Amino acid sequence: MSSVGFVGLGCMGSHMARNLLKRGRQVVAFDVDPKRAAELKADGAEIVKHPADVAAATKELVTMLPNSAIVRSVYKESNGILATIRAGSLCIDSSTIDQSASIEIASLVAEKQSAYVDAPVSGGVGGAQAGTLTFMVGGDQPHFDQAKPLLELMGKTVVHCGAVGTGQAAKICNNMLLGIQMIGVAEAMNLGIKMGLDPKLLASIINTSSGRCWSSDTYNPVPNVIEGIPPSKNYVGGFGTTLMTKDLGLAQTASTEAKAPTPLGSLAHQLYQILSKHPDFKDKDFGVVYQFLKNN
Amino acid sequence: MSSVGFVGLGCMGSHMARNLLKRGRQVVAFDVDPKRAAELKADGAEIVKHPADVAAATKELVTMLPNSAIVRSVYKESNGILATIRAGSLCIDSSTIDQSASIEIASLVAEKQSAYVDAPVSGGVGGAQAGTLTFMVGGDQPHFDQAKPLLELMGKTVVHCGAVGTGQAAKICNNMLLGIQMIGVAEAMNLGIKMGLDPKLLASIINTSSGRCWSSDTYNPVPNVIEGIPPSKNYVGGFGTTLMTKDLGLAQTASTEAKAPTPLGSLAHQLYQILSKHPDFKDKDFGVVYQFLKNN
Amino acid sequence: MSSVGFVGLGCMGSHMARNLLKRGRQVVAFDVDPKRAAELKADGAEIVKHPADVAAATKELVTMLPNSAIVRSVYKESNGILATIRAGSLCIDSSTIDQSASIEIASLVAEKQSAYVDAPVSGGVGGAQAGTLTFMVGGDQPHFDQAKPLLELMGKTVVHCGAVGTGQAAKICNNMLLGIQMIGVAEAMNLGIKMGLDPKLLASIINTSSGRCWSSDTYNPVPNVIEGIPPSKNYVGGFGTTLMTKDLGLAQTASTEAKAPTPLGSLAHQLYQILSKHPDFKDKDFGVVYQFLKNN
Amino acid sequence: MSSVGFVGLGCMGSHMARNLLKRGRQVVAFDVDPKRAAELKADGAEIVKHPADVAAATKELVTMLPNSAIVRSVYKESNGILATIRAGSLCIDSSTIDQSASIEIASLVAEKQSAYVDAPVSGGVGGAQAGTLTFMVGGDQPHFDQAKPLLELMGKTVVHCGAVGTGQAAKICNNMLLGIQMIGVAEAMNLGIKMGLDPKLLASIINTSSGRCWSSDTYNPVPNVIEGIPPSKNYVGGFGTTLMTKDLGLAQTASTEAKAPTPLGSLAHQLYQILSKHPDFKDKDFGVVYQFLKNN
Repeated sequence: MSSVGFVGLGCMGSHMARNLLKRGRQVVAFDVDPKRAAELKADGAEIVKHPADVAAATKELVTMLPNSAIVRSVYKESNGILATIRAGSLCIDSSTIDQSASIEIASLVAEKQSAYVDAPVSGGVGGAQAGTLTFMVGGDQPHFDQAKPLLELMGKTVVHCGAVGTGQAAKICNNMLLGIQMIGVAEAMNLGIKMGLDPKLLASIINTSSGRCWSSDTYNPVPNVIEGIPPSKNYVGGFGTTLMTKDLGLAQTASTEAKAPTPLGSLAHQLYQILSKHPDFKDKDFGVVYQFLKNN
Repeated sequence: MSSVGFVGLGCMGSHMARNLLKRGRQVVAFDVDPKRAAELKADGAEIVKHPADVAAATKELVTMLPNSAIVRSVYKESNGILATIRAGSLCIDSSTIDQSASIEIASLVAEKQSAYVDAPVSGGVGGAQAGTLTFMVGGDQPHFDQAKPLLELMGKTVVHCGAVGTGQAAKICNNMLLGIQMIGVAEAMNLGIKMGLDPKLLASIINTSSGRCWSSDTYNPVPNVIEGIPPSKNYVGGFGTTLMTKDLGLAQTASTEAKAPTPLGSLAHQLYQILSKHPDFKDKDFGVVYQFLKNN
Repeated sequence: MSSVGFVGLGCMGSHMARNLLKRGRQVVAFDVDPKRAAELKADGAEIVKHPADVAAATKELVTMLPNSAIVRSVYKESNGILATIRAGSLCIDSSTIDQSASIEIASLVAEKQSAYVDAPVSGGVGGAQAGTLTFMVGGDQPHFDQAKPLLELMGKTVVHCGAVGTGQAAKICNNMLLGIQMIGVAEAMNLGIKMGLDPKLLASIINTSSGRCWSSDTYNPVPNVIEGIPPSKNYVGGFGTTLMTKDLGLAQTASTEAKAPTPLGSLAHQLYQILSKHPDFKDKDFGVVYQFLKNN
Repeated sequence: MSSVGFVGLGCMGSHMARNLLKRGRQVVAFDVDPKRAAELKADGAEIVKHPADVAAATKELVTMLPNSAIVRSVYKESNGILATIRAGSLCIDSSTIDQSASIEIASLVAEKQSAYVDAPVSGGVGGAQAGTLTFMVGGDQPHFDQAKPLLELMGKTVVHCGAVGTGQAAKICNNMLLGIQMIGVAEAMNLGIKMGLDPKLLASIINTSSGRCWSSDTYNPVPNVIEGIPPSKNYVGGFGTTLMTKDLGLAQTASTEAKAPTPLGSLAHQLYQILSKHPDFKDKDFGVVYQFLKNN
C-alpha cells in the first residue's frame, strides 16, 4: 500500500497524521515549522521540504491548514502541490475555509486529472487525538467513496454532504448556529440568574423545554452547572473564542456571497470579535461569553 | 370542596377552566367577552359580572390574562379581585407578564392576608386542552404546595422555580432562548441550502452535532424537513409571531430592569416585531422567520 | 410674584433651581438628600419636608428626577404632590422618563383641575448651570404658553412638541439616534484607522460626505481628532455611558409599547449596557465606545 | 496628448468617459456590452475588443467596474490589462472593491514597472454626468500627483487618502456609516411619529440637536419631510438598496480581515440584505428602509 501525503502538522494535523501511522499507513509529510515536522519524523513519518515533494511522492494527500490563503499557497505556489501532482491523485482538504476557495482548488486539481474533496472536521483536538473526528465531505460520489476508508483511519463518522464545497457549508452552518446558541444560552442564564433563579434549576427547566440545545444541556457556559467541561474549569481548554471568531467570519463571507441574510450569525461574529481581542477572554473557551455579559 | 374562581377565558383559559370542571371542581368565572363566558356556562360554570364577584365567591382564584396592564386592572380596579378578596385566599396567576408586575400584585395580595403565586405555562393551546401544560411556579414553599394539586388538574408538570416572580423569569428566559434559536436555525438552514446542501441532510448533520436544538430537531422551520408540524403546513397553527414578539418584549423589559445585556435576545425581538407587522407573516407560526429570510 | 416649587436638586436640578433664584424668583424646594437641600437653602431657597409641602406652598411646580418610578412616587405617595396640589396649578416635569408615565401623571394632575407638561432637557450639566438648556415640551398650547416664561429662566430654547408626552418622545428619539451614531462613528473610525487611514483625515472626509453627523464633526470619539472635548481628555466629563444606557432603555420600552421596530437602537442599548458594567468604561463619557471596540 | 484608456462603460463609467471626451481627451475604450461601447463610439471614442487592447494603446488607464472579481479578471486574464501594459503606465481604478483586491492589483502593476492608484468615487450617477464626483485616492504621492489632473476632468474634488487601498478604506468607512445613519434616522422618525410627533417637527428638532446628520437634514427618509429627494418621490432614483448592500458587504469583509468589530455596520448590512431581496424594496432608494420598518 502506497504512502499518504500530509501537509499541515498543527494541533489537529499532527494527531491525524499520527493516527495514519498507528493504523499502518506510511506518511510523507511537510510542515513550515521544522519542530513540528521533527516530532512526526520521530513517530515514523518521512519528512520532505515542500508541499510539491509530498505531491511527488504520494497519490493520496491530506491537507490540514489554518485558512483559505494558506491553502491557496500550499496548492498554487511554485513549490506547491499543483506543481508536481500526478494524474489520478486524490486530494483531501480537511481545513475549514471559504467554500469558494474549496471550489477554486477543486477546479485546479481537476485540470491535473485528479480528484479533490473538502472534508472539514468537528471534534476538536481531543477527537483528532482519539481518532473520533467527524468528517463532513463535499465531492463527487466516487471521490467520496475513495476518500472514506482513509478518513475512517482518522475519524469515527464520515458524512457525504454533496458536491465539492458542501463539506465547508455543513461545517460553517453548524458552527454559526453553535455560536448563536452559546451566546443565547449565556444571555438567558445571566438574565434568569439576575431575576432570582438558581442556575442549575434554570438549566434543568430549559433542558426539558423548547430552549433545549447542546450549549445548554451539554456545554452550559455557567460554571458548575455541568462538571468537567471547560466552563467549570475557568474556561481553560475547549473551543477558543478565536476559533469561534474564525468560523463565524467564514459564515459572514458565505452570507455575503450567497446573499443569505444572517442577522444573528452576524451579531454573534461581532461579539466574538470583541471577545477575541479582550485580554481576559481571548485565550479562553468560547463559553466565556457568559462572563463577558455578566461582567461586574 | 369549595369552588375555584377563574378570570380570563381566552384561548388558553377556557380550556384550563374546562379541565377543572371535568375533574370535578366547581368553577365561578368571569370574562370581559360575554360569548366566552356563555360557552363556559354551558359546560357547567357559574358566571359572574366582575372579578370582584369571583373573589367574593371563592378562595382559590386562577387568572389567565394577556398582559401586565390587564392583570393590574383585574386585581386593582374598583370591581377587581383586591376589592373583595377574603383573608386566606390563594391567587394563582398563569398569565405571562412582567416579573415586576407579579411582584407588585403579590405584595398587594399579601396585604389582604392572602397568598399569590405566579404560574405561567408552556404547552400552548394544545396542552391547555389536553391538560398537559407545564406550570413554572414562583412563590413561597407553602403557597406552592397549596397551589400544586389545583395546577395538576390542568397540567402535567408543575415546577417550583423559587420566590414570587421566578415563574415569570423561567418562562421569559426559556422563550427568549427559543426565539433566538428559531431565528438561528432559520439562518443556518437558509444559508446552507443556498450553499448547496439538501435541507434534510443539513438538519440531520446539525441534529447530531453541536448545533442541535429543539428548533432544529423537533420544530425545524424549513417546510417538509419534519412532517406534521406547522412549518410543513404553511405555518398555520403553532406559536404565532405575535406571541413570540410579546414574550421577547417581556425579556427586553427584564433585560433593561436587571441591567443584564441580551444582544441576541434584543435583535430577535426586533426581527419578530418586523415580522409581526408584515401582512404575510403576522398571522403565522413563528417558524415563518425562515420564509422572511429566504424571501425571494 | 408667587414662589416656584422645585423637587429634585441633583446635578441638573440644583443648577436649574439656582437659576430661578438668580433671576428673581423665590423657590420652595425639596430633595431626599438633606445636604443637597441645605446647599440650595444657602442660596436663598425655602426648604420643606415633603413634595406635598411644595405643592401646598406654590402653584408652579418643577420636578427634575432620575426615573419613572421616582416621578410616580413624588406625585402619588401620601406625602406627594397630588395629596395637596391646589386647583389651577401648573406642573412642569423636566425628568426624562417613559412617555406612558408622563401621560399617567398628566391625567392624575388633570383630575385635580391642574395642568401638566413634560419638559425634558438637553444640554447637560453645563447647560443647566449656564441656563442654556433646551426644553422639549409636551402639553396643551395654553399650558405650554404658561410654562414658557418660567422655562426661559432656566434655558435658552423652548420647543413645543405637541400633546403631553411628546416632549419625552422628542428627547428619546434624538438620544437613541445619537447613541446609534456615536457607535457608528466609533466603528467607522476604528475600521478606517486599521485599514491605514489617518484619523483626522478620515474624520475630515466623513465630515464633508454623506456620513457627516454631530458625533463625527463635533464630538468625534477618537482622541485628539477634536481638541477640548471629553474624548480628547481621557473621556472624563461629558455624557456618561450610564446616562446613555438609561436613555436607550427608555427608547426600547417605547419601541416595545409602540410596536415600532428599532433594530439598531436596540443593539446600541445592549452595547451600552455592556459598557456601563465594564470597570474601564462605566464612569466615562459615552464616546469611550471607541476604546471598547479598539480594545487591544 | 496621448489617449486615455477606459474599461467599464456602465451607469457611472459611460458618463466619466464622456467627460474626458468633452474636455478634449481622446479615449480608447472597452466594455463587455457592445451596445454600451457603440454609444461611446458615437460620442467619439475608439472602441477595442479587449482590455489588453486598451492597455496596448494607452498609458493612462481608467477602470470603473462592479466588483472585485471583475476587476481581477480585467487585469489578470489572458486578454487583460496586465498582458500588454507598457512600463511607465498609470492605472486608475475607480471601482469600489475590497481593499485587499486593490493592494493585490497594485502589486501586479508594479511588477510591470507601472503605477496604480485606487480612486473610488462618491456623487452617484448625477455627479458622474455633471463631472462633479469626489475621488478618494490611495497611492504614492507621485502617482497621486500624476492622476490628479486626469481625475479633475471627471470630478470636482480629489482627495489623497494615503497609500494604495486607502481610497477604498475611506469610501467603505463613510458608506458604512451612512448605512447605519439612514437606518437609525428611519428608526427614530418612525418611533417618534408613532409616539405622536409631527414628522417635520421631529426632523427639525433632530437637525438642531445631537442627532443631526446628513440622513436627517439632507436626505430624510420620511416622505415629504424634504421635497425633491427620492424619499419624497416614492423612493425612485437615488442610491439603491442593492448598492448599499454591496458597500456594506465590503465593510463586513474589511471588518473580518482587519479584526475590527462593527456590530452596527454588520446589522445594517444584514437589514439591507433583507431589503434588497424584498420585491417592494429591492429596486428603491435606500431611504425605503423607513417603509420597511413602518410597514403596516
